Amino acid sequence: MEAKFKRLKRELQCEGHITKYYKDTIELPDGNTAIYDFVGHNGAAAAIGVRNDGKLLMVRQYRNALDRFTLEIPAGGLEPNEPTINAAARELEEETGYKCGKIEKLITIRTTVAFCNEKIDIYLATDLKETQQHLDDGEYVDVKAYDLDELISMIYDGVIEDSKTIAAIMAYKVKCGLSHK
Amino acid sequence: MEAKFKRLKRELQCEGHITKYYKDTIELPDGNTAIYDFVGHNGAAAAIGVRNDGKLLMVRQYRNALDRFTLEIPAGGLEPNEPTINAAARELEEETGYKCGKIEKLITIRTTVAFCNEKIDIYLATDLKETQQHLDDGEYVDVKAYDLDELISMIYDGVIEDSKTIAAIMAYKVKCGLSHK
Repeated sequence: MEAKFKRLKRELQCEGHITKYYKDTIELPDGNTAIYDFVGHNGAAAAIGVRNDGKLLMVRQYRNALDRFTLEIPAGGLEPNEPTINAAARELEEETGYKCGKIEKLITIRTTVAFCNEKIDIYLATDLKETQQHLDDGEYVDVKAYDLDELISMIYDGVIEDSKTIAAIMAYKVKCGLSHK
Repeated sequence: MEAKFKRLKRELQCEGHITKYYKDTIELPDGNTAIYDFVGHNGAAAAIGVRNDGKLLMVRQYRNALDRFTLEIPAGGLEPNEPTINAAARELEEETGYKCGKIEKLITIRTTVAFCNEKIDIYLATDLKETQQHLDDGEYVDVKAYDLDELISMIYDGVIEDSKTIAAIMAYKVKCGLSHK
């Protein structure tokens, strides 16, 4: 049987642009209380785009949190009431300039459960047709296509660190049922 | 050539228990500025513990951010100046009650690069010997061992959502070079 935890309070501390910061007061199973951080996020969607030549579409962009560029699968926040499958296809086309003919769910991740509720639904997009990038103001994204095994090596070598990208690429690799050479 | 981004300001908004919340002002390549969230975190370490019978040690615990229990690999924050390899072995033993004879780096992840710098070094721990759990005050952790393929199925079925756990288990699966049935 699970121990009983109860949230007594969730107090807003400050608001950011895509996140809100709270202080949670939790009643523990022994009756004591504990204070935990909580970062609220509206959720996101991401897509592995696999071209007909088998290469995967990756985007390279500046991330202020790390003050450097990162290599990631295309992803973005949800628009109001937007289903994640639509958001994934939209972000894929906006960021890479490829429209997908087929899209199916791969996995769902929670990025960092210790203090945040951010959920990312990750899709596998295939039957791609080249259209064109549509970036938001202030968005700068470079697109490049890679072989799956090249990306797997870049993960073990520490070149790719982004959790959604690692989870997605590895989950796709395992789904493909191939062994890594 | 990469477009030029420059952080003009990083302003503390409020402080949590394990995170700090900032507002970043970034100069974009076109000379305009943009405001982005930044959540500062000190980093963490995690371990996949593989027992001699091949089963993987998982922990089940309450997470206030989701207001439910989650199934994860053992992990925790770093103590001051603690190397991540030590932290991974320490958290494995504290949370599961197994000491490892061998530990090697598997992958590094950044949990959510859009707004946070949290880095988790994930290790593969083997040659395990049973000792005993040492939980912190207010920490309640249930331990259970699973077959690798059972965990893989739980990821595709959405039972396991934690990003470090998915990235680690899939990376271990691919490293093992086995196809998923």
